[in-house]
Amino acid sequence: MYSSESIEKLVEILSTLPTIGRKTAQRLTFYLLRQPESFIEQFSTALIDIKKNVKLCNICFNFTETIPCPICMSDKRNKQIICVVEEPNDILAIEKTHEFNGQYHVLHGVINPLEGISADDLKIRELISRVAQNNIEEVILALNPSVQGELTTFYVAKLLNQLQVKVSKIASGVPMGSAIEYADEATISRALEGRIII
Amino acid sequence: MYSSESIEKLVEILSTLPTIGRKTAQRLTFYLLRQPESFIEQFSTALIDIKKNVKLCNICFNFTETIPCPICMSDKRNKQIICVVEEPNDILAIEKTHEFNGQYHVLHGVINPLEGISADDLKIRELISRVAQNNIEEVILALNPSVQGELTTFYVAKLLNQLQVKVSKIASGVPMGSAIEYADEATISRALEGRIII
Repeated sequence: MYSSESIEKLVEILSTLPTIGRKTAQRLTFYLLRQPESFIEQFSTALIDIKKNVKLCNICFNFTETIPCPICMSDKRNKQIICVVEEPNDILAIEKTHEFNGQYHVLHGVINPLEGISADDLKIRELISRVAQNNIEEVILALNPSVQGELTTFYVAKLLNQLQVKVSKIASGVPMGSAIEYADEATISRALEGRIII
Repeated sequence: MYSSESIEKLVEILSTLPTIGRKTAQRLTFYLLRQPESFIEQFSTALIDIKKNVKLCNICFNFTETIPCPICMSDKRNKQIICVVEEPNDILAIEKTHEFNGQYHVLHGVINPLEGISADDLKIRELISRVAQNNIEEVILALNPSVQGELTTFYVAKLLNQLQVKVSKIASGVPMGSAIEYADEATISRALEGRIII
């Protein structure tokens, strides 16, 4: 199909990435062909480096280059509140708000029976023993409001409720800036259910 | 911002690529972090390989690993018709139709005074001498129907008309499967102008 096997190979690899279809992969490859060699070398090195340098924190399981990670090491953060998230990128999203000053715990997924992901495949056991062994006041469950996220929230909350710890989950509702008119029924139900007295 | 400099670096590089914003770059990086080392190595090697192996054909200036490229070398293709395109990926699009069996010539851009790209920056001189030196019957100009593409088509056609060669350009009009109602005025004008007696 292509005039070069090297081009075909790169297009093939790029199109396995999420959000990148064959057409975009093609476009990216031709863009990369036009870049200077130094850029390609940097790109190639950056790829190797993430695999070489990035590990999981042994406390919160976030991606990090130092163990424990900077958040777990920081003196400025409240060590008695743990926010539980599905993936490391959720931490980025929460950190951007500057509203949370506690610790994190990354589950690396949610329970998904259809895809064969059970509680044992996630960092749930580690969360329970972390909460049991440390003086934790509150665990905030900040999993995605999907069916699997809800299932996992329920499962983890049940385990945590056996310990002396407050367990909460983040609110679901109509997102800021959007309109009730366009919100789906499940979201509106949640918004009503979670109504706040003002 | 990130918990790792290596992550930051890769996100930065990925977000310089066309069609990839910062959010997608982030998502891709986290995806790559979850891939096995062998995949990352393949990816990294494929990048280096396109720069190392892919050259420009010395006849048509398409990307190729062998010089001349397979199309220029092929005995099965009509050597008397040259289709002129802007970029190597245009060749892919045309080849997919299986409607064209001639040779190609890649200009590697179009004349764009605003961006300082003049005729000398393109493979126009090479096209003229290729047509002059070989027994070429027809040159089909298949540049994009943009202002710059039209300008370049006109410029190249003027030069080619001084040689003994038929010069044509591909038709512009309402695309197949779309509706006249939604076509812009320039497209409809072109469709009327290029009408065919049936």
